[in-house]
Amino acid sequence: MPRIFQVSVPSLRVTLSSIFRKQGFNSTDALYLAGTLIDADQRGISSHGTQRMAMYDAKIRHRIIDPHARPGIVRSKGASLLIDAHAAMGQLAMREATNLAIGLAQSHGVGLVTVRNSNHFGTAGQYARKAADSGFVGIVSTNSNPIVAPTHTAVPALGSNPIAVAAGYGNDQLDFDAATSTVSLGKVEVHEKTQSLIAADWAVDAHGDVEHDPVAIMNAIRSKPRRAALTPLGGPGENGGGYKGYGLGLAVELLTGLLGDAPASIDLNGTRISHSILAISPEAYGGSDALAARVSQLAKRLRSLPSSDGHPVLFPGDKERAALAQHHDTVPIDEVTYKQVRDIAWGLDIDEPQIVRIDDGDSAIATGNGKTDDTPHETTNIGETTSTTAYANTPIITQTSR
Amino acid sequence: MPRIFQVSVPSLRVTLSSIFRKQGFNSTDALYLAGTLIDADQRGISSHGTQRMAMYDAKIRHRIIDPHARPGIVRSKGASLLIDAHAAMGQLAMREATNLAIGLAQSHGVGLVTVRNSNHFGTAGQYARKAADSGFVGIVSTNSNPIVAPTHTAVPALGSNPIAVAAGYGNDQLDFDAATSTVSLGKVEVHEKTQSLIAADWAVDAHGDVEHDPVAIMNAIRSKPRRAALTPLGGPGENGGGYKGYGLGLAVELLTGLLGDAPASIDLNGTRISHSILAISPEAYGGSDALAARVSQLAKRLRSLPSSDGHPVLFPGDKERAALAQHHDTVPIDEVTYKQVRDIAWGLDIDEPQIVRIDDGDSAIATGNGKTDDTPHETTNIGETTSTTAYANTPIITQTSR
Repeated sequence: MPRIFQVSVPSLRVTLSSIFRKQGFNSTDALYLAGTLIDADQRGISSHGTQRMAMYDAKIRHRIIDPHARPGIVRSKGASLLIDAHAAMGQLAMREATNLAIGLAQSHGVGLVTVRNSNHFGTAGQYARKAADSGFVGIVSTNSNPIVAPTHTAVPALGSNPIAVAAGYGNDQLDFDAATSTVSLGKVEVHEKTQSLIAADWAVDAHGDVEHDPVAIMNAIRSKPRRAALTPLGGPGENGGGYKGYGLGLAVELLTGLLGDAPASIDLNGTRISHSILAISPEAYGGSDALAARVSQLAKRLRSLPSSDGHPVLFPGDKERAALAQHHDTVPIDEVTYKQVRDIAWGLDIDEPQIVRIDDGDSAIATGNGKTDDTPHETTNIGETTSTTAYANTPIITQTSR
Repeated sequence: MPRIFQVSVPSLRVTLSSIFRKQGFNSTDALYLAGTLIDADQRGISSHGTQRMAMYDAKIRHRIIDPHARPGIVRSKGASLLIDAHAAMGQLAMREATNLAIGLAQSHGVGLVTVRNSNHFGTAGQYARKAADSGFVGIVSTNSNPIVAPTHTAVPALGSNPIAVAAGYGNDQLDFDAATSTVSLGKVEVHEKTQSLIAADWAVDAHGDVEHDPVAIMNAIRSKPRRAALTPLGGPGENGGGYKGYGLGLAVELLTGLLGDAPASIDLNGTRISHSILAISPEAYGGSDALAARVSQLAKRLRSLPSSDGHPVLFPGDKERAALAQHHDTVPIDEVTYKQVRDIAWGLDIDEPQIVRIDDGDSAIATGNGKTDDTPHETTNIGETTSTTAYANTPIITQTSR
């Protein structure tokens, strides 16, 4: 399995933003995009961090993502607004959508912005968190390539369709972000890398039978058409409530593509993705301070409940906040991803990011709490990079961790 | 196990509305309340139908529910509005909230109404469906008595916290309504009645261990304090994604009590419940006809997917629509419920509802698709009613079923 490189955050920021700059984004956008990916890495959501660079690079080269696109307002009425991303990076379309939703909520109490013709937008949580940090409730979702099988079929027809919800401030912020599938594909990929069997009903094969071998699942998912699917939250069939995960996935379809008069996940193939963000002002209720106080009080009470299994009761966001506190100066990047980014950088005459430390592969790669992750990472050509001499020319700096 | 009585719908409507009238509700409200309960029975959601009469009767007698309460607007700003139910029946507060949310969405594109100081409101789906029938997207939730254990504890601290989402029209309407627990308590009660072990991880005992005996679960849930809890959607622990059901339950807490500056589920004891309804106008997007067309098209495509297990792929609402079509003239009422309603009626000098047919208990009592159901039904004194002679004076009419 690949080794884990602890990479300097400032250096990574320079490399990623330089790549985006040379791909055609303006300086502000390039820095913003680098920041969102590094933030995901720092929060332990590696599946949505630097690991995504190879996918973005390919989509930019194939003109699926347009670095020069300017998202525009299609229609607006009162508190509702529709944006056409014009094939912009999802992050840039959603930066705009989030600001507009917050503005609408300031004026109208509520603001709902739907985005269509967009691309993969990274984590859903970042936009919900932006609304919460601004004193609002934020609810964010996106559709995505079909990878989840509805109840009673094995055909992947829904996206992983994450829902993110945030409110309150700081360490007690409610910061929830989860795919409506049982797990994100990233979790299956972690098991593939570690070659460990999956103990739960995360995926089904083409016959609808639960498959526990992560290698078999990933191979079947990488085939075209896909010959495996993730289960909806609650698992296959009805016994564990899987029809609820299916229904929640459909709720996301409704708020994104269906409402935006754009394709549903079943018709997506990596483009024309739709997102939505709802911002709610607490002003007509108790105000944002009262809301934050209630959120904080509930967080503290839930965390203080006695554990039944030795693990502490967490409040949504606790894991990611703990990871963020640990990764101020360096972030873990797996060897495959590191090489992909290095090659993209070298091809654009940009320096590769600095490695502070190399860990062996036993350190688990955190993939976050079930974030959406609908595109399998390329793991071919891994053999090219497993020799330590491949990094003979890579500077390794030392640095004191916080 | 109790027998199932097929009861005349017109007769049941007269009995229930007469009871509500004598309890102090005006004629309009009494008929509306009877209608919402019968509609749940007709849709196969018996847990939220006539079965609830005993609970409502007790709460009205104990002045927890005030038949004379007039819900009032506390604050409003633009598209957002807060209602104080003043201890009204939840259904009456939500009838008002739904109309207001639709009105706000007509004016502002979006409308979000939160209700506090309310009571059990029946099914969440009925309000979402009302919004959908009016051409809007409806999203409804409510907090409720603590019965769901957050991930890593056995303490019930969240309500079953249902989410209902609806859009589109007719037989292809997206009509989703589900508790954020793995199942509603009603499903456990059905297993209790049939004395059949539960094959999935629906509930945990006071130590956090999965309990499969429905009698043990219900006894522990009826004890004070509760010594069992439902699991969040995804099950106990993290392996099946249970932290997502926990997080979704918290999202409901946020949109109801926390936003409404009112108690969270953890502090509820059958009163001061909060609800919310979000209505969205499709006008700023493709309009309501375009949305309904997209919903309908997706419904048809999903239903046509090949089955992997012999069961057809359904669209949310299909089960309830099929039940509704079968129960135009009669609804199935279990023997215990029938006796409770008969006794309430007799106590108020009202005729009991007419029984059309008596089935033995092998006909399953439908409890819907995992609707919220946070109050255990009283099953004490069941022995009193198991003799057929108990119904010697009850008229049994015959009727042609559609």
